[in-house]
Amino acid sequence: MQLLEERIRRDGVVREGNVLKVDSFLNHQLDITLLAEMGKEFERLFHNCGINKILTIEASGIGVACITAQYFGCPVVFAKKSKTSNLAPDVWTARVHSFTHGNDSDIFVSRQYLTDRDKVLIIDDFLANGEALRGLISLCEQAGAQVVGAGICIEKAFQPGGEQIRSMGCRVESLARIKSMSPDGIEFC
Amino acid sequence: MQLLEERIRRDGVVREGNVLKVDSFLNHQLDITLLAEMGKEFERLFHNCGINKILTIEASGIGVACITAQYFGCPVVFAKKSKTSNLAPDVWTARVHSFTHGNDSDIFVSRQYLTDRDKVLIIDDFLANGEALRGLISLCEQAGAQVVGAGICIEKAFQPGGEQIRSMGCRVESLARIKSMSPDGIEFC
Repeated sequence: MQLLEERIRRDGVVREGNVLKVDSFLNHQLDITLLAEMGKEFERLFHNCGINKILTIEASGIGVACITAQYFGCPVVFAKKSKTSNLAPDVWTARVHSFTHGNDSDIFVSRQYLTDRDKVLIIDDFLANGEALRGLISLCEQAGAQVVGAGICIEKAFQPGGEQIRSMGCRVESLARIKSMSPDGIEFC
Repeated sequence: MQLLEERIRRDGVVREGNVLKVDSFLNHQLDITLLAEMGKEFERLFHNCGINKILTIEASGIGVACITAQYFGCPVVFAKKSKTSNLAPDVWTARVHSFTHGNDSDIFVSRQYLTDRDKVLIIDDFLANGEALRGLISLCEQAGAQVVGAGICIEKAFQPGGEQIRSMGCRVESLARIKSMSPDGIEFC
């Protein structure tokens, strides 16, 4: 998606350790106009797939998931990262390792909101090692929900997550796929 | 807002300890159609106030903030709750106590995304003791940003946060104000 690639080139900042900072428009400050264009593109890609639920994970997936859901006319469910005192005890859960934060966390959704009647589009801002996406797919499998596919804003295609998950048979559509990046520049696939 | 009050009466669940669970439509599964109606109402309430930024806090404020931002044509910034390894070092920060989770956390926004040029509408899903809202107002004060007001989905008006913050001179508009609640029923102001 050209608009997103241009924005990443203009405002993305590459840091050591393969970190791409897109805080100015995607995961701290959110450019809602850009999110809307991404949402329309996800709808074009997954049109007529019968999607009745969008699943994402807190926190930075929620914005793009909500904007995207408007174009599908369906609700969003976001997986939570740690057990809160007022969540229902009946949850689907998966262990996810964060390479960014260097720790493991359990993600979960209430069983009420993810069931075998759901045809799910998973939405997330980043795909790199694929840990979060595998966790979300696992939640769907536990629920008996059908994963129609995953819509990702930015895929670090030089990291293995995307290809691993595609090879499992899951459709993954990434709006920007980064082939390589360094402080000198970013190359897209 | 009648639509929201009806939804709370229908789908809200009152638990011990003054907990109102609205997981089915507001803070785990998100009813995007309802969020859009709330966004339009916030726009009606804060029309012509010159708002150029919406500030919220992760995680459950992000959805309604993003949908609302579409009606203001402005970006969203969400305050984060713990320091991540890839966030800029230059942040505004405030200590917030969570009565729900029984702990303190530091919230912060990057100084880049909250400045003295901003006229801010703060959006959040709940207002009870007002801890989160006071923290967000503090971030704005540190930045020299003008707080135009706060748009809250559900205010527990029997808890002191709303009145305390209004008495500080901050405009607070809550779409549903709960006067009292028990497992037998919910009464609105």
